[in-house]
Amino acid sequence: MSEFTHFNDQGRAKMVDITNKQESNRSATAHSSITVNESIYKGITSNQMKKGDVLAVAQVAGIMAAKQTSTMIPMCHPIPISGVDIQFDWKQIKENYQLLISVTAKTKGSTGVEMEALSAASVCALTVYDMCKALDKGMVIGQTYLTHKSGGKTGDYSRDEPVE
Amino acid sequence: MSEFTHFNDQGRAKMVDITNKQESNRSATAHSSITVNESIYKGITSNQMKKGDVLAVAQVAGIMAAKQTSTMIPMCHPIPISGVDIQFDWKQIKENYQLLISVTAKTKGSTGVEMEALSAASVCALTVYDMCKALDKGMVIGQTYLTHKSGGKTGDYSRDEPVE
Amino acid sequence: MSEFTHFNDQGRAKMVDITNKQESNRSATAHSSITVNESIYKGITSNQMKKGDVLAVAQVAGIMAAKQTSTMIPMCHPIPISGVDIQFDWKQIKENYQLLISVTAKTKGSTGVEMEALSAASVCALTVYDMCKALDKGMVIGQTYLTHKSGGKTGDYSRDEPVE
Amino acid sequence: MSEFTHFNDQGRAKMVDITNKQESNRSATAHSSITVNESIYKGITSNQMKKGDVLAVAQVAGIMAAKQTSTMIPMCHPIPISGVDIQFDWKQIKENYQLLISVTAKTKGSTGVEMEALSAASVCALTVYDMCKALDKGMVIGQTYLTHKSGGKTGDYSRDEPVE
Amino acid sequence: MSEFTHFNDQGRAKMVDITNKQESNRSATAHSSITVNESIYKGITSNQMKKGDVLAVAQVAGIMAAKQTSTMIPMCHPIPISGVDIQFDWKQIKENYQLLISVTAKTKGSTGVEMEALSAASVCALTVYDMCKALDKGMVIGQTYLTHKSGGKTGDYSRDEPVE
Amino acid sequence: MSEFTHFNDQGRAKMVDITNKQESNRSATAHSSITVNESIYKGITSNQMKKGDVLAVAQVAGIMAAKQTSTMIPMCHPIPISGVDIQFDWKQIKENYQLLISVTAKTKGSTGVEMEALSAASVCALTVYDMCKALDKGMVIGQTYLTHKSGGKTGDYSRDEPVE
Repeated sequence: MSEFTHFNDQGRAKMVDITNKQESNRSATAHSSITVNESIYKGITSNQMKKGDVLAVAQVAGIMAAKQTSTMIPMCHPIPISGVDIQFDWKQIKENYQLLISVTAKTKGSTGVEMEALSAASVCALTVYDMCKALDKGMVIGQTYLTHKSGGKTGDYSRDEPVE
Repeated sequence: MSEFTHFNDQGRAKMVDITNKQESNRSATAHSSITVNESIYKGITSNQMKKGDVLAVAQVAGIMAAKQTSTMIPMCHPIPISGVDIQFDWKQIKENYQLLISVTAKTKGSTGVEMEALSAASVCALTVYDMCKALDKGMVIGQTYLTHKSGGKTGDYSRDEPVE
Repeated sequence: MSEFTHFNDQGRAKMVDITNKQESNRSATAHSSITVNESIYKGITSNQMKKGDVLAVAQVAGIMAAKQTSTMIPMCHPIPISGVDIQFDWKQIKENYQLLISVTAKTKGSTGVEMEALSAASVCALTVYDMCKALDKGMVIGQTYLTHKSGGKTGDYSRDEPVE
Repeated sequence: MSEFTHFNDQGRAKMVDITNKQESNRSATAHSSITVNESIYKGITSNQMKKGDVLAVAQVAGIMAAKQTSTMIPMCHPIPISGVDIQFDWKQIKENYQLLISVTAKTKGSTGVEMEALSAASVCALTVYDMCKALDKGMVIGQTYLTHKSGGKTGDYSRDEPVE
Repeated sequence: MSEFTHFNDQGRAKMVDITNKQESNRSATAHSSITVNESIYKGITSNQMKKGDVLAVAQVAGIMAAKQTSTMIPMCHPIPISGVDIQFDWKQIKENYQLLISVTAKTKGSTGVEMEALSAASVCALTVYDMCKALDKGMVIGQTYLTHKSGGKTGDYSRDEPVE
Repeated sequence: MSEFTHFNDQGRAKMVDITNKQESNRSATAHSSITVNESIYKGITSNQMKKGDVLAVAQVAGIMAAKQTSTMIPMCHPIPISGVDIQFDWKQIKENYQLLISVTAKTKGSTGVEMEALSAASVCALTVYDMCKALDKGMVIGQTYLTHKSGGKTGDYSRDEPVE
């Protein structure tokens, strides 16, 4: 079994050496969500509430966060992000509405782009919370996880069992 | 009902004016979590795995993220954070282990410190993911939400119903 | 006549001491613009081009830049920005179209908020350039200047003569 | 005609995918300016005012801004800047003086370096404003535009008509 | 004896709570240095080497670092820096030359400004190293320490014994 | 003799052009230290003081600083850091204790990684100061210098004479 890769021989964290890893095209897709009440849902999606703007701000925040990932996550390597795309969908859950957030990040680099996709998805959800919290502080950011990655030595990964 | 507070009269986002809000002591507590398999759990907690270091890195990341919240979240006001404390607990869920993350952030400022607590909790969980992802990419970051806030004009908030 | 205020007694730049200046409510409004061709104008404003999104991104960029001003401008003091609002207007100039950008920034601080308004206006214009440059690299960012400030010891300022 | 390249199929902004673009040597030169009164001009240029220091600070600010461009401009890709050079010239306009700012930025990357040159030029001008605003808040930052670019698939660009 | 103040009751680091500390005027002065060979000394100080520019860049770097201290130092509180001044002196040591760096930082805040002064002094020295390292990689950054602080509950501090 | 490489033909600083330098594997090791009294030494190292945590925070700070070097040091090129490792040792000096800090940084880039190693070492020492300053403000950060570099056109460097 592989070992923890962020520790040096003093047992302390280090940024692992990837100097000799090959550059390759890599992609990762992460999922997050935020559940809001009907009033917020209507505010975000109706024409009267200037449709799209909460999501537009959240999306910009997510893309900028992807670029800041190695600044935010201590042992994360800086990689040259070559693309970020964020998709939104809505799903009704009883009387509430869940905004589904899917972020795909790409790089041509020596290490994977999973953290960039996950960070962007999280910041996207946090931004929706920020922009709607005057209406309801009870919004819940849903489970956040990797759904797919490709490229790199460890090969492809796809979550095959649903997250409960 | 209160309205969306981040839109200007052109229907676009703005940073709302808090110039005339009073400074007061404010506090917010947010919850997040990450579920890991037994092998990662043992690695993080056993003496052989240099107990506490993954959590130590995650905690530093969370505290630094609290200070970067207004840089990350577009419409968030910069506030002078006066304290951040992060607590960890473990909970076994069948064969897996859930790291419970609780972040309390404080400020003496003109607006609330909810986003700082939530951002710190999210970045804390993301950092654990980053440090353990060589072992398992299937870890899931759990629901992230506000559990308590105090101070400010809108008064105190405590989540009274559990999040399912 | 007042002297240059950013030099120390060795003739080098310093960040001037404002420790004993009183906090007061301050506001500043800055103007910038960018001139684009008809095709870009239509792209930005027509329904088919998803009206508002270029401007939405530009606006988020401007607001975030206001918060980063003291990081960007070396001798600029960090101040607690309490509000930022960005307004857009269009003006036809012969066959081209000029996007007028007006940014108002506010603070309750010990020094003025002019640089924040000017920086936000500049970054707003730069972002429009970035998002449209695939269509035309010849866009010109127009003159950028302060139109109004209030608050602080030096009192109010309004540009009374038009900028040619 | 080429289309807007920053929108995804939901009509929202994304960071376009450049994973498969070739790296090449690229260069871009941008122009900005700031017009100041005679007193400020003399202050900046005379020996008594420690010649060069306002410009030295502005230049450092411009170079640092070039490196921060992808942090400032939301859809801008991070690229490895390989060189930045800033040149200053003075031009008398009636009783005022115009500081001409020319920034050349270089990269060996997968996308152009125009935004880096433009951002550096803007921040350079903003910094001069900041350092002289105690003397006159009426300074005007002049038109800012690309004068030349080379490298990349779209080839070379040179502005051939003067900007009025 | 006072205890370590950055640990929570789980024995992990936290950002200590200063919500109830009074704001007061505070000042701190830190010292650093860098020893260079005669060739570099002459390059920095002679007219032919464009006197002052290495120091001008170092000084801007130091001032900007003071403003980034709470971003760099994990448990450091963000404070509103109200002034930074950096002084340089030269001292000959046998065949070498030592650049003495003295940084005074000020704030009107709830906690001290020592870290800002120390960080600025360090970054100042690092910048001189960076700008001269093509000539000699053997330069040594000297001891870095606090020489004075005033303000705050713990009162004034002055180093009374020389650092060997 | 080589000349100062950060000046343009106007005698002002620039970021030197490395567009045509070859990428190669590079490594640099820097040394710093901080001298603390026995009480702080015992606090950091004893089991009762949660051994390792001050060092864990310092180490995270150092690694994050390595990634921020080109943001901190004005003329420093952004390079893709591929690994950072920080080692600590203790040395008793009469009644005091010196924490020896050794940082090795690696890159596969077009310019050296010396500044990253030096910056990380400095920030590491500054962080220890920050976390212990409640006990003693008289701690002294020791000499900071390059001990080794490899890779690049200028070849290897090793400090062969001890720093006094």
